[in-house]
Amino acid sequence: MAALAIDLEGGDFGPSRLLPASIQFFQNHPQHSGTLFGSASLQSSLPSLPANLRFEPCAGALPPTLNPGRLLRHEYGSSIERAVSELKQQRVDAVVSSEHTGILMALLHRHGRVHPALDRPVLVSWVPTSKEAMLMLDLGASFSATAEQLLGFAAVGVAIASGQLARKPRLALLNLGVEANKGPQSIRLAAEHLARWPEIDYRGFVEAGEVFQGDLDLVITDGFTGNAVIKAAEGTLDLTLGAIRHALNRDLVGKLLGYLLRNRLRPIMRQLDPRRSNGALLAGTDMALIKSHGDATGVAFQAALTRAVEASEGHWCTAILAQLDTLQDQSAATH
Amino acid sequence: MAALAIDLEGGDFGPSRLLPASIQFFQNHPQHSGTLFGSASLQSSLPSLPANLRFEPCAGALPPTLNPGRLLRHEYGSSIERAVSELKQQRVDAVVSSEHTGILMALLHRHGRVHPALDRPVLVSWVPTSKEAMLMLDLGASFSATAEQLLGFAAVGVAIASGQLARKPRLALLNLGVEANKGPQSIRLAAEHLARWPEIDYRGFVEAGEVFQGDLDLVITDGFTGNAVIKAAEGTLDLTLGAIRHALNRDLVGKLLGYLLRNRLRPIMRQLDPRRSNGALLAGTDMALIKSHGDATGVAFQAALTRAVEASEGHWCTAILAQLDTLQDQSAATH
Repeated sequence: MAALAIDLEGGDFGPSRLLPASIQFFQNHPQHSGTLFGSASLQSSLPSLPANLRFEPCAGALPPTLNPGRLLRHEYGSSIERAVSELKQQRVDAVVSSEHTGILMALLHRHGRVHPALDRPVLVSWVPTSKEAMLMLDLGASFSATAEQLLGFAAVGVAIASGQLARKPRLALLNLGVEANKGPQSIRLAAEHLARWPEIDYRGFVEAGEVFQGDLDLVITDGFTGNAVIKAAEGTLDLTLGAIRHALNRDLVGKLLGYLLRNRLRPIMRQLDPRRSNGALLAGTDMALIKSHGDATGVAFQAALTRAVEASEGHWCTAILAQLDTLQDQSAATH
Repeated sequence: MAALAIDLEGGDFGPSRLLPASIQFFQNHPQHSGTLFGSASLQSSLPSLPANLRFEPCAGALPPTLNPGRLLRHEYGSSIERAVSELKQQRVDAVVSSEHTGILMALLHRHGRVHPALDRPVLVSWVPTSKEAMLMLDLGASFSATAEQLLGFAAVGVAIASGQLARKPRLALLNLGVEANKGPQSIRLAAEHLARWPEIDYRGFVEAGEVFQGDLDLVITDGFTGNAVIKAAEGTLDLTLGAIRHALNRDLVGKLLGYLLRNRLRPIMRQLDPRRSNGALLAGTDMALIKSHGDATGVAFQAALTRAVEASEGHWCTAILAQLDTLQDQSAATH
């Protein structure tokens, strides 16, 4: 049983997409409850809500070109600020928003204390593979990462994955080769530490081409590289499917083949598309904040709501802060 | 008319694959000449060579676990050392080898002077897109890159692309967003400089997902990210095609569909596969050294030989050093 706060503004479509998706989710999950934060102008045209869902009017969306840094000093009364404030006051268990990462980070900084083992909140994503989805982080604003930062990311990931899996999480560090002497010093140093962590099944280095094969539970990298890898995968998937479509649309036989193929290939293509695995956690504070893709479909937004329920019921924030404490204690003991 | 030195050792298959590919290439291109460097033990079983190709026996391959650093102080008389030495003495115009990048870098350092605008030789690759192949660098050993390094990479790429294209090269910097305020300081600073380069059509930032769309001639990034992007693309292509194959092999109708599709899709899949665009240039010295993939097919190895001819006939090394001189002069003028 989880209580969620939902930011109806933000993202590419706002309430027109997020409101119906939320209503459907809470109709299907009567055990959970939700508070929708949206512009007061919505109130007059609001459809009837299920009993476990209520609407809280507010000033609406943030100014579209807002510099996130301004949120540290100014209040706009926007839907996302109201939702995060509700979470801070522990009136809900988790927040789901489609706002930009920078906005969400600034609000975490406004309200929360980021664990000192991290420089800033980290973005944990669930990435589809040919088997199970796996966790990958950081996908946030770490442009490069020291060994200490990489270990911080690993601790966050381990806390979540350990709660989800019956086995020790299989963890690997993204690198440009699998041999121990490959890559920058920071990654090799992190590897030496991780090889001694008792709570993981450490798998060494992984190259970007093998990340999606589904043999790992956790892949650790800096935010810049993580971002590039995910986007390169999305781009290649689009390009490949586009090329297939183009090759089939050339003539009548091709179109017939395409028609026969469509239903056969659709499920597997959906499984592989990183965009479908929606709902990333901004981790490292005591607040469970789930970021949805800005262009998420209604189904994908409901996946983000499910992630928020998991975060709440799995006590991810508490587990993450405890794991980061352990990391800090170990680090203090070895220095 | 180019004279090439070919390292028959190195790579996953050695002479068994590289020798027939080389013979075929020089039979098809009688205007060029080649010297094959390989183990003396090959001599007794050597097939007859075309008139423009000769075999030079030597000690063979380098020890497989050799630390590249040892090549700065020791000589092994190996095929790649002999080939590079031949190039240094200007008896050939370019070298093609399947050796590891680290080995090739060490040999360039042994013989050559890397241009002071670069820290080390950079690896320029030709990456397939949905349209024309484009240049991407660095794909070598730069784990991160300062603004100065990124500008050095850009200068190298511009020198090659300007000789190949009738238009100004369309150049972009790989970043995690396209807005000017996105990403690390090094990339934003490099962007400010590139926007003022008269010899390019500067396109700003590009995200990894858009790199392969074919609207660019040159993409600039550090070696770690470049490596991750290329490998993520290769991995996704394999995974997607594997998933399609799996979905079709489930039953008889699927197998029939697969049979009908194969010839239709093969050309486009080949065009998209980064591994097929073989032959990377290790740039930044006066020696034209082309690296072939270790697992290149015979056809792919011939593509690397063609790249070496282009490097020679296009005077790439001279053009690159001149462009790096210009960059240094500009940089001195602004400091």
